[in-house]
Amino acid sequence: MTHYRLALVGFGNVGRAFVRLLERKKTELASQYSLTFSVTAIASGRHGAAINPQGIDSQQALQILESGGSLNQLSTRSFPQEMTAFIRSCPADVLFENTPVNYKTGQPAIDHLRAALLSGMHAITANKGPVVHAYHELRALAQTHGKRFFFESTVMDGAPIFSLFRGALPAARLVAFRGILNSTTNLILSRMENGESFDEAVRYAQSIGIAETDPAGDIDGWDAAVKIAALVTVLMDTPFQPQQVKRTGIRAITPAIAQAALKEGERWKLVCAARRNEAGEIQARVAPEKVGRTSPLYTVDGTTSIVEFETDVLEKLSIIEADPGPSTTAYGLLADFIQATR
Amino acid sequence: MTHYRLALVGFGNVGRAFVRLLERKKTELASQYSLTFSVTAIASGRHGAAINPQGIDSQQALQILESGGSLNQLSTRSFPQEMTAFIRSCPADVLFENTPVNYKTGQPAIDHLRAALLSGMHAITANKGPVVHAYHELRALAQTHGKRFFFESTVMDGAPIFSLFRGALPAARLVAFRGILNSTTNLILSRMENGESFDEAVRYAQSIGIAETDPAGDIDGWDAAVKIAALVTVLMDTPFQPQQVKRTGIRAITPAIAQAALKEGERWKLVCAARRNEAGEIQARVAPEKVGRTSPLYTVDGTTSIVEFETDVLEKLSIIEADPGPSTTAYGLLADFIQATR
Repeated sequence: MTHYRLALVGFGNVGRAFVRLLERKKTELASQYSLTFSVTAIASGRHGAAINPQGIDSQQALQILESGGSLNQLSTRSFPQEMTAFIRSCPADVLFENTPVNYKTGQPAIDHLRAALLSGMHAITANKGPVVHAYHELRALAQTHGKRFFFESTVMDGAPIFSLFRGALPAARLVAFRGILNSTTNLILSRMENGESFDEAVRYAQSIGIAETDPAGDIDGWDAAVKIAALVTVLMDTPFQPQQVKRTGIRAITPAIAQAALKEGERWKLVCAARRNEAGEIQARVAPEKVGRTSPLYTVDGTTSIVEFETDVLEKLSIIEADPGPSTTAYGLLADFIQATR
Repeated sequence: MTHYRLALVGFGNVGRAFVRLLERKKTELASQYSLTFSVTAIASGRHGAAINPQGIDSQQALQILESGGSLNQLSTRSFPQEMTAFIRSCPADVLFENTPVNYKTGQPAIDHLRAALLSGMHAITANKGPVVHAYHELRALAQTHGKRFFFESTVMDGAPIFSLFRGALPAARLVAFRGILNSTTNLILSRMENGESFDEAVRYAQSIGIAETDPAGDIDGWDAAVKIAALVTVLMDTPFQPQQVKRTGIRAITPAIAQAALKEGERWKLVCAARRNEAGEIQARVAPEKVGRTSPLYTVDGTTSIVEFETDVLEKLSIIEADPGPSTTAYGLLADFIQATR
């Protein structure tokens, strides 16, 4: 039985779902993976932080957040306010980084993960920023320290995408991929097919907590471009920036256009695609495309996502994840945790 | 660098595709997995056998088979005619078992795999019979001998199904699955939608080498039932026989019925399904079902296959494999080989 001390930086919906999942899976982790754990540090964005080397009562932490209190009351020692200093001071073996994504720089999450690896912790994140902006650096740093930098939850929530290529598809070379990776735009397109206006569909996506207050990042294809960049960077092992993705959002698609396509047996989808050509160059784009009913993208509705991989050994292998939520993302963190400690 | 000596029992389309794939991936296996190999034994069904501890020239073996010759001319020593004695006499570290499937008993493949494990070899197969009829025994035998019994290619060809749950989905409990797992019937249903008669569609499936001369095993749902039994046995860790699957084939579906459904936006599919109920009992069935265009099964055409997994951590995760062939099955064997030696 090996005991792991866990530090959580960022304690929003995903961090809280992760703590609940850990509790639910406690017995299985011990019996199947000989693994016990305690949460020794939590830092939230707006509700304080706590360090307790004996283990923080996570139920109590969740209750404090629900009642709007501060985590500080759970701390058994004082701690630095600056976050990288906080991380370095954590009595922890694994850092889970779940702060909000910064598409432009990946910061401050990169600094958090770097501090963790330098302090001898595994570094696990659901944050796309560091993957796009610092994957090769953080991977090298992890290798140097004999630790792992894992990030399964950054694309398609907890669906096993990165671990698929890391383990289940040995000696497979990714040639191209194609998919639907942004929930907000897919939901908007689905709802416009049913007659809602663009604005109504956006408001609905916001009301269920999928779209941001400013949904431009989704609608103009930036979020999709970041996910494409993450997949290319990791799975094609080539640093790739979101700016390199040829990008068209969904603003030109109206309910009339969406409905006309549907009548003809086609659907407008915001399609992400990348391909390595024979010269070895990678070309990537995100743009609205009409897909017919022979494409697996055709049935992908609402917040469901799909990616179709073309490799040199399996012609076309697709993964679909239906109806994700914070608990799905939390599962990706748990899977990363188990795999990092194997 | 570790060297592995490989024995191939069964040398039909899949065995030959595997030998070609090994050659193609030779450099990558060495550079990425520190793994070299030689094929030291081949036994074919009707074209003799050969053992050469120094390594058989696999190009030569392929040429001999193409010209209708006997492999015996490549052997540097005499060998027993009885197959389990042949396997025991192989100077090999890994056995690849690719003899024709026997749905009723799993034999003689079970004996072959048992002989390999008892002789200290990893045992890898593309043959469903042993999985359905002897999974728990062979797995235990492999564990006792510190070897692996792997069989990725038995369901959905080389698509990573078993290795997904073995590695990429830790601590996930499979609650239910649903899918299209038989190519022949799916192809027949697709072609009937396009106006072909049942008999024409069967003949087409036979002409491209998908359907057997007697296609009853596919049409009456037996092949699907065997695959369901394999998935339940392994992924739900519960011995399950094909006879326990409630089984209805596709004989009642006519072109008129298929076309009428299509006009209404639905398609007839031979759907495989299993679920563990709250009492812990597993119920499984295969039967034609109409699926609508919100189901990922809807776009699955021709020889493409799909399985949709419902787990306690990811609501719905689907895997689609498009357009498989012998080289896809061969990739499953290669993946098993690499994973067995890791």
